[in-house]
Amino acid sequence: MKSGDHSTTIDVAGPSNSSTKGKSTTVLVAAPKATGMKKGMAIADFVLRLGAIIAALSAAATMGTSDESLPFFTQFFQFEASYDDMPTFQFFLIAMALVSGYLVLSLPFSIVTIVRPHASGIKLFLVIMDTVALTLATSAAAAAAAIVYLAHNGNASSNWLAICNQFTDFCQNVSGAVVAAFVSVVVFICLILLSALFLRKH
Amino acid sequence: MKSGDHSTTIDVAGPSNSSTKGKSTTVLVAAPKATGMKKGMAIADFVLRLGAIIAALSAAATMGTSDESLPFFTQFFQFEASYDDMPTFQFFLIAMALVSGYLVLSLPFSIVTIVRPHASGIKLFLVIMDTVALTLATSAAAAAAAIVYLAHNGNASSNWLAICNQFTDFCQNVSGAVVAAFVSVVVFICLILLSALFLRKH
Repeated sequence: MKSGDHSTTIDVAGPSNSSTKGKSTTVLVAAPKATGMKKGMAIADFVLRLGAIIAALSAAATMGTSDESLPFFTQFFQFEASYDDMPTFQFFLIAMALVSGYLVLSLPFSIVTIVRPHASGIKLFLVIMDTVALTLATSAAAAAAAIVYLAHNGNASSNWLAICNQFTDFCQNVSGAVVAAFVSVVVFICLILLSALFLRKH
Repeated sequence: MKSGDHSTTIDVAGPSNSSTKGKSTTVLVAAPKATGMKKGMAIADFVLRLGAIIAALSAAATMGTSDESLPFFTQFFQFEASYDDMPTFQFFLIAMALVSGYLVLSLPFSIVTIVRPHASGIKLFLVIMDTVALTLATSAAAAAAAIVYLAHNGNASSNWLAICNQFTDFCQNVSGAVVAAFVSVVVFICLILLSALFLRKH
């Protein structure tokens, strides 16, 4: 058990002990209090991951089911809006699905860091993957937000008209998905900060 | 490996006393080899920051100077495209300027971690700020990329026409800015990974 050999407490009365000479002597150094704190941080990590899963999955699901047909149509054309129509929204759906999948797969690793608070290699791996997932989620959310803004407001100088006047429900769904994606982004930032604190305590 | 991280050698002719910081229970701890490696990582951090500054500044400058007037005009209207016309591009400019400013301000902190490889508090601060800057840069780049894609390709179902047929130079400038922004995003990811490694060696 790793935690056994790492939790040697050297109760130093003063800083003078730090001058102990000796090459490659491993003086290990973690008070039980620090271990408890690391365990608490690992549990917080797990709970935050659950929250991120909910946010990312609901973003993907809301985007995937956004679909609206208008009740009138011409001879050639029925007015219908769906996430398929916009490559950005397709990217959003794929990216958030990938992020959700990664989050589910990362849960076992998070549990391992609860059981073994000194397994810093796993934590390092999680930080790397979290950073990549953060980038993916942020880019999906921001790109979709730019398009949603355009759909709401249009742009006069490039003559792109707002379509949310017609497709009200579609726009509401898509906006909700973007908000959920940004929630997962915020949770990811918290996860990375927690992991950095965890690695520092190592 | 693990014991290497923790091995105390205080054989030192000097600055290792700076490593005895914090509460008295924590004896700080690094073999000379690990110190050299940390110094190398701190120097790599500094160099990467310089690269990120160049990328972010060039992204902001390219976007800020993108401006094109077409050589023909009607009685009422001269055809002109500039980043002002799109709120997304304005956001891009502001965000990349902020990121550049943060990067310049972070250089002194990066130098401190070269001089004092055990100053993990500063490193933690840099990780937190880097993560926020990464999110800002990614969202600016992704939002601008979504609009640039639309400007290049248009969207048939929402009846938004491509404008890059007319404004060729403008579109090229803006696309270049987006690419530079994504370069800075990649550098930020590397910076965060380096910092996580650095904190783990702590």
